[in-house]
Amino acid sequence: MTKLISPLVSQEIGLLPVLLRKAINYAGTYSPYYFQLFSQLGLKPGSIMTYTDFRQIPCTTKEDIAKDYRKFICVSDEQIIDRSCTSGTTSTPTPFVLTDSDLNRLTRNEAASLTLAGIGSQDTVMLCCTMDQRFMAGLAYFLGLRQIGASVIRQGVCNLLSQWDCIRREEPTAIICVPSFLLRLIHFAKENGIDYRSSSLRKVICIGESIRQPDFSLNELGRRLKEAWPELSLHSTYASTEIGAAFTECSEGQGGHHNPELTHIEVLDQVGFPVTTGEIGELVVTTLGVEGMPLIRFRTGDLVQLHNQACACGRTTPRLSPVIGRKNQMLKVKGTTIYPPAIHDSLNSVAELENYVIEVFTNESGQDDLRIYFTTVAGVNDLELQVHLKEICHARLRLKPTFFEVSKKEMYRMQFPSGGRKPRKFIDYRK
Amino acid sequence: MTKLISPLVSQEIGLLPVLLRKAINYAGTYSPYYFQLFSQLGLKPGSIMTYTDFRQIPCTTKEDIAKDYRKFICVSDEQIIDRSCTSGTTSTPTPFVLTDSDLNRLTRNEAASLTLAGIGSQDTVMLCCTMDQRFMAGLAYFLGLRQIGASVIRQGVCNLLSQWDCIRREEPTAIICVPSFLLRLIHFAKENGIDYRSSSLRKVICIGESIRQPDFSLNELGRRLKEAWPELSLHSTYASTEIGAAFTECSEGQGGHHNPELTHIEVLDQVGFPVTTGEIGELVVTTLGVEGMPLIRFRTGDLVQLHNQACACGRTTPRLSPVIGRKNQMLKVKGTTIYPPAIHDSLNSVAELENYVIEVFTNESGQDDLRIYFTTVAGVNDLELQVHLKEICHARLRLKPTFFEVSKKEMYRMQFPSGGRKPRKFIDYRK
Repeated sequence: MTKLISPLVSQEIGLLPVLLRKAINYAGTYSPYYFQLFSQLGLKPGSIMTYTDFRQIPCTTKEDIAKDYRKFICVSDEQIIDRSCTSGTTSTPTPFVLTDSDLNRLTRNEAASLTLAGIGSQDTVMLCCTMDQRFMAGLAYFLGLRQIGASVIRQGVCNLLSQWDCIRREEPTAIICVPSFLLRLIHFAKENGIDYRSSSLRKVICIGESIRQPDFSLNELGRRLKEAWPELSLHSTYASTEIGAAFTECSEGQGGHHNPELTHIEVLDQVGFPVTTGEIGELVVTTLGVEGMPLIRFRTGDLVQLHNQACACGRTTPRLSPVIGRKNQMLKVKGTTIYPPAIHDSLNSVAELENYVIEVFTNESGQDDLRIYFTTVAGVNDLELQVHLKEICHARLRLKPTFFEVSKKEMYRMQFPSGGRKPRKFIDYRK
Repeated sequence: MTKLISPLVSQEIGLLPVLLRKAINYAGTYSPYYFQLFSQLGLKPGSIMTYTDFRQIPCTTKEDIAKDYRKFICVSDEQIIDRSCTSGTTSTPTPFVLTDSDLNRLTRNEAASLTLAGIGSQDTVMLCCTMDQRFMAGLAYFLGLRQIGASVIRQGVCNLLSQWDCIRREEPTAIICVPSFLLRLIHFAKENGIDYRSSSLRKVICIGESIRQPDFSLNELGRRLKEAWPELSLHSTYASTEIGAAFTECSEGQGGHHNPELTHIEVLDQVGFPVTTGEIGELVVTTLGVEGMPLIRFRTGDLVQLHNQACACGRTTPRLSPVIGRKNQMLKVKGTTIYPPAIHDSLNSVAELENYVIEVFTNESGQDDLRIYFTTVAGVNDLELQVHLKEICHARLRLKPTFFEVSKKEMYRMQFPSGGRKPRKFIDYRK
């Protein structure tokens, strides 16, 4: 309990901010889930005034929502505008509903987020993710870009030749995409004699994957992008459907800035106490101003560090480190703790590796073990590559996974088993 | 010239409506294309006051826009929000840019259009077309539905099982889709024992294909839908990227209602004179209130009839018949004029036919001739079907096309040669 009175968490002592109190009161009154939870605990939503009160509220997990998402809805059917859905990367795909006011909150979030990354009305932005498939982010990007007066090219996910045709014809200045997609775009340009570095693209909003190490230096993926195309400025983002807000990097690239008007954040240790500043812990988010499905103390499952010093850009809002790992994806291999991002990073350092899927399972001795399926860049000797990959994994991670080469078709089937919006690159078969 | 003073076109004599004069003045001042056109003709945009003046302006064709779409843009790059694109069904895919105000006009259009079809805030609407691929309509549907307070499920084009899963879980009351897609959805339900008639779906906004004959009775496609699922109310629509407005049927199903605040319409004969009311002619549209790329007297290429009598629903706005044909798709076979919709209709009457593509070419004798590629419903004898198809075409259309059975994969490749948003069902190889 000493941690609670540590001066490092002094910010979390005293009266809760007004927006947070409003959010708790609203959810506790209108959400059947929180109404029931508060009743069971004998808490009155309106009486939760301090951080000590606040921490009496048990955290909400993805599983709580997946179990019955309807219990989280605070509005009547008539008020619902958008019926989004989580992508189900780490849990069952779960519907998430938004009212008109929630869409406005989402618009404010993306407008602020894109402005942070230096996007303005002078920019033409290629949107290389879908607005279909009930994807909240795709819609949010469009709404935010419209708000700040940028031009949007709603490309979606289409073939690389079409993307390059569009870049040539429309001269976009920025792109919103998964960073590994950008790597494929560069690869295609090199193979087809496209002078990509002379193209109009200058800014990248990186979604879904990290391009940095916890110390903010570029990871292997970021480094490969920067080496291949030095003219680009890369901006990392962190976001999720549940929190309906993004943490986006400014030009300093020192973590995603928090917008305190949209979410209240905590970083908790394994027992559920706030970590001291800079320590690794799980990001727990309370959404502010959400009308449809507000969440109180939502456990993201993502392990991060929070940086409280003022940023060189002048902003004093806290910054979020890249995700160091997902709590439920922790691997214990021969006594060593390891998270998937470290494995991704090692594999991303190998240029001959075109694509891969990591599978983790419990082996005969009851230990965590790895299988890695991969495809190679055309013309590469796959046996030599396999030896090289084994060496890398052993040297960097002390891991000895089994490698299997598969066809591009097979890879696609593994990554998109039933359509889906995001490729699955880490599959967990452990019990 | 007598036609001009026919009482049937009396509505087109005298002073032009204010919105039309404004549109002409705006385009003539800010669009490089119209500025140049008016200068060459010695016309002052502000002096075009009467229908006689108006008809001095030459029509704009799809080719005029494809040649250099930039000449049609009336705003600076900074004012552009959305960079849509035509689908290129009958011409080259051409960019079409919209400002914030144009997006608002599009929203007003769809809100009015969907309200006409009886969609309101109580409805949950499955959007089964894409919002990606620079498709203007997909975005317009979302914006319009949001405006009227309906719930939107942004499904896009995904596999039929996912669509049925979504219908079961989310209980949408309406669907926006291509009617032949709905036929496939019904077919899938029958094959998989889904009790589709008991599902929540009750309204269909039919896009891209007609479900009616020129006399407003259901065509073969509409008839098959209605027979398979009598509980559905079907609403036909007509729209295009260039005109940025839709003509939608009310519950009476007697043609698409015109919204006189969004477009000015003419129906012209082959020489370019207005036809008498009820006669078939080409739909020519002038967009009203468009900021980005306004068009004056845009030749849609679509042959229609205009109905001016008040509708049984109480509205007095003119109604548009289904498209009878496309001007440049007219076939002359042994002296008889025939349009693709008639061929589509005959083929759609055959339940065993799963999918098809019509190719028209110039044969050795210099005549228009047809090849039809098809796939069959599982378990059908394709030779018997071919004989049946030949009989139908001969009896109904006096045509003797050659038929070729192809695999589903080959069919997909023919219909979507390079991705694309709409299946190509009519391919014209004539010189």
